[in-house]
Amino acid sequence: MDARFLDHPRDRMVDAAVMGLRACGLAGAGVNQVIAASGAPKGSLYHYFPGGKLQLAREALERFGEQRREDIEAVLAVDGPVDQNIRRIFKRMAKAMSAEGFRFGCAVAGAAVDLDEGTAELAPVCHAILETWVDAIAAALAEIPAARRRPLARFIVTALQGALVQARAARSPQPVLEAGEIAASLVRAELHPS
Amino acid sequence: MDARFLDHPRDRMVDAAVMGLRACGLAGAGVNQVIAASGAPKGSLYHYFPGGKLQLAREALERFGEQRREDIEAVLAVDGPVDQNIRRIFKRMAKAMSAEGFRFGCAVAGAAVDLDEGTAELAPVCHAILETWVDAIAAALAEIPAARRRPLARFIVTALQGALVQARAARSPQPVLEAGEIAASLVRAELHPS
Repeated sequence: MDARFLDHPRDRMVDAAVMGLRACGLAGAGVNQVIAASGAPKGSLYHYFPGGKLQLAREALERFGEQRREDIEAVLAVDGPVDQNIRRIFKRMAKAMSAEGFRFGCAVAGAAVDLDEGTAELAPVCHAILETWVDAIAAALAEIPAARRRPLARFIVTALQGALVQARAARSPQPVLEAGEIAASLVRAELHPS
Repeated sequence: MDARFLDHPRDRMVDAAVMGLRACGLAGAGVNQVIAASGAPKGSLYHYFPGGKLQLAREALERFGEQRREDIEAVLAVDGPVDQNIRRIFKRMAKAMSAEGFRFGCAVAGAAVDLDEGTAELAPVCHAILETWVDAIAAALAEIPAARRRPLARFIVTALQGALVQARAARSPQPVLEAGEIAASLVRAELHPS
């Protein structure tokens, strides 16, 4: 039998957990929510994820992290000044958030701010994903001196995360667009120190 | 009877909801969590909060927002260059997060990234609180041209929020300290344009 067909409900569950995390953090990636959203049969969680909801959350975070890293890399691969590409990352996020009615954010942020004793093992998963985004941005800042490259790349991820929190509260793309302008200006200042 | 004595369990419930929001978002400010953490009698939620858990969450957010606004204003009132005071806000947050073992973050972020249809009415509450912080910071940036003051103040709040997400994932104060350095440098660049 086709392995991809067998994997289908499992895949849908991971996708449902990603959307749940993006909408309302770990509470959105709970068993009942994921079963309801994915249409997977009740009781199938432990069949597909022997490690239970933490395994599901981890796989959802990793899937989301990889998709976003690819998105970031695709924007940064566009021919042109890197500061404009950095701004473009924020613009795309602002546009996507508006299209989704500000109901969804970053799955990693959703999990990271929800961690308690029972879910603490997801912290290093979140951290590792954030670092892949920092790596992707740092790689595009190759013209900036090495010592300043990584803190700046991490700060751009910080700005993305914070802008997203503000945009969800404000139901407005404005904080994301403003953050993009300032992030781009920071990159410009490093590229062309006066 | 002393009204303050009567209010005591109610107050403890709001405090418990603040800590719950800071630890794990809206899931941490649920009825069972707040009853358990506050020691308030079961069934007392609707006695003290006729509007139920949304009223409790709203009051918790407002209490947290006011405390943090006062903290920000106190740091910004320190005599000295405003860029150093901005950096001090981040340093204090890094120190507090380390002392709390990175188990707690911002109650407003915790709520904002958890909003769904049933809790959407908390979005304007979160937004209004964030704006009070933006106001407090903008007031301290009086030397910066008016048109650039507010976007910069909002970006500083964005940087605080994003740094906090990263610090919880990394279990490290480093993202907060780095963000503080860059936020301070942005303020310096506006104060002394080259």
